[in-house]
Amino acid sequence: MIPTLYWQNNRLYLLDQRQLPFRETYLACSHWQEVRDAIQCLAVRGAPAIGVAAAYAVVLAAQDVLPDASLSDKIGALKEICRQLDAARPTAVNLHWALTQMWQAVKEHQQAEPLALLRYLTEKAAALQEEDVRINTAMAEFGAAELAKAGHPLVLLTHCNAGALATAGVGTALGVIRALHKKGLVRRVYADETRPLLQGARLTAYELLKDQIPVTLITDNMAAWTMRVQHVEAIIVGADRIARNGDTANKIGTYGLSLLARQLHIPLYIAAPSSTFDLRLDSGADIPIEEREAAEVRTFQGNPAALPETPVFNPAFDVTPHENIYAIITEKGLIYHPDTASVCSFFQQHF
Amino acid sequence: MIPTLYWQNNRLYLLDQRQLPFRETYLACSHWQEVRDAIQCLAVRGAPAIGVAAAYAVVLAAQDVLPDASLSDKIGALKEICRQLDAARPTAVNLHWALTQMWQAVKEHQQAEPLALLRYLTEKAAALQEEDVRINTAMAEFGAAELAKAGHPLVLLTHCNAGALATAGVGTALGVIRALHKKGLVRRVYADETRPLLQGARLTAYELLKDQIPVTLITDNMAAWTMRVQHVEAIIVGADRIARNGDTANKIGTYGLSLLARQLHIPLYIAAPSSTFDLRLDSGADIPIEEREAAEVRTFQGNPAALPETPVFNPAFDVTPHENIYAIITEKGLIYHPDTASVCSFFQQHF
Repeated sequence: MIPTLYWQNNRLYLLDQRQLPFRETYLACSHWQEVRDAIQCLAVRGAPAIGVAAAYAVVLAAQDVLPDASLSDKIGALKEICRQLDAARPTAVNLHWALTQMWQAVKEHQQAEPLALLRYLTEKAAALQEEDVRINTAMAEFGAAELAKAGHPLVLLTHCNAGALATAGVGTALGVIRALHKKGLVRRVYADETRPLLQGARLTAYELLKDQIPVTLITDNMAAWTMRVQHVEAIIVGADRIARNGDTANKIGTYGLSLLARQLHIPLYIAAPSSTFDLRLDSGADIPIEEREAAEVRTFQGNPAALPETPVFNPAFDVTPHENIYAIITEKGLIYHPDTASVCSFFQQHF
Repeated sequence: MIPTLYWQNNRLYLLDQRQLPFRETYLACSHWQEVRDAIQCLAVRGAPAIGVAAAYAVVLAAQDVLPDASLSDKIGALKEICRQLDAARPTAVNLHWALTQMWQAVKEHQQAEPLALLRYLTEKAAALQEEDVRINTAMAEFGAAELAKAGHPLVLLTHCNAGALATAGVGTALGVIRALHKKGLVRRVYADETRPLLQGARLTAYELLKDQIPVTLITDNMAAWTMRVQHVEAIIVGADRIARNGDTANKIGTYGLSLLARQLHIPLYIAAPSSTFDLRLDSGADIPIEEREAAEVRTFQGNPAALPETPVFNPAFDVTPHENIYAIITEKGLIYHPDTASVCSFFQQHF
């Protein structure tokens, strides 16, 4: 896979995912506002990837702010920028997590010379990026070992894009699928196209085709019938935020899949780094759900699908109740039947 | 609503539904093959509408065949045309039903003079069209009376287009919604956009907007979350074929909605004329499911959504098990909890 993002010559290069799979072009970001805009317009998307992008946005901000002699409170200015970056998208908590890490680094080194502080921040962002790569690989191994227990090649279904494009590494759900494929244990992956922005059609199908993993594209409303007639054996998706009781916010449609999975006795796996957990929240009811503009539903890539005056409901995410989740795959291992007890015990054990 | 189809000056005019909601244009069909092509490419669609269109196609065929002095077996030629029309789309049984009616008319009057036979067939097609209008109205009244029992304006969800555009009259599911709206008992209708061909976005939202019935468009993967957070109280859809045990083939996605409805305790209503029942079939396992070309899924309104080499699964319909259906609304009344016993008893009572 070509990289989702990379840092070079004091700039952050973001693969413009709005253009995929037809054009592979990069946005070169020199200022933090360009990264914020790229996050908001989904040029970069996927909870782990926007965390890493935001970390580099803080570096870009420091490049602007620290040499600016007219600014009396440079640390205060960086704090305000972190706050604005954090508000770019409300649901994925990895954004908040990465910014918290960067803000800690700022505070720890606020007495340092500007150039030294800048160097610390650049190293910190690079470390977060490298950590995401390692975390992806660890998740992939844990997940593949779990799914390999079936002992035969599996028919899988995934939703949206929880792939390399959503992370700095091999992906969360698609990382697991890649590792399982290396073991020869993937029979076929059904990919929901994932309206309104078609991340399944544009990104997941593209990633799996590139890696020569057998993939079949379906529209979202075909998922239930596909599970039944194509004998789907497991569903695996990513996550944007997980509450302390295991309730999981992910791309709109995941909640419906979880109800189908439950009724058809198909295990639903969530693949997500531990930074996706928001232990401040008791349950999914506390997770803010981003609503995006109506034009996304009324159109596709600028082409109308409905009359412009049509009212629209466009939640970008939904919340899957923990009781519909068979297991959460993290970089430290699996949490089976997630609930408050199993999640808390997992964090006590590993952190 | 503008008419879905009409007969004028020995031609069948079909509203070209591929152009809706942006252009209201008619295809003028002078030959039966044009009607068959319009059915295949979904210029006219909806189980009852394609039945009526096919009936008029037989009239167009008779206009060509009966005056043709070179044809020795004109009745045989009409029989072969009926067979070819019947094969235009495999799932909806109303097409077969209407052609059976027309073929009966041919056989009954095969000794008549060509002009007299042509007149009989024209009258028969017109009678089928008028009957569809009456059936729609009767279904609408039965359905609205049922839903009115709630005693307050309802939040409804529908899928695909089971509207005036799918019939010669007020529609099946949307006919019920129109009648319920006249009673002041529709709070809001959520319309699934219904990929791949967007009949919900292009046709259902357009019909309801025209009639000033409150409608909100959602993508298909938002249905479950909408049911939950917008408190959907009933789901109502049409049907393409119903087996003797009540198993119902309808637009792809209906099966998934039925599983969601079951788990969220929301009643699922099917609105369909009795001609939609295929009493020859024991169960839904015997209903042929049309698979359509991959390009429908790979593109969105003609614009690419995925790489052209992406494998696709594109079933146009699915089968909802009868146990997930609360009631079937017909022109003769409701069949609650449909199964072989209740369906057979309904037909014994009314036919």
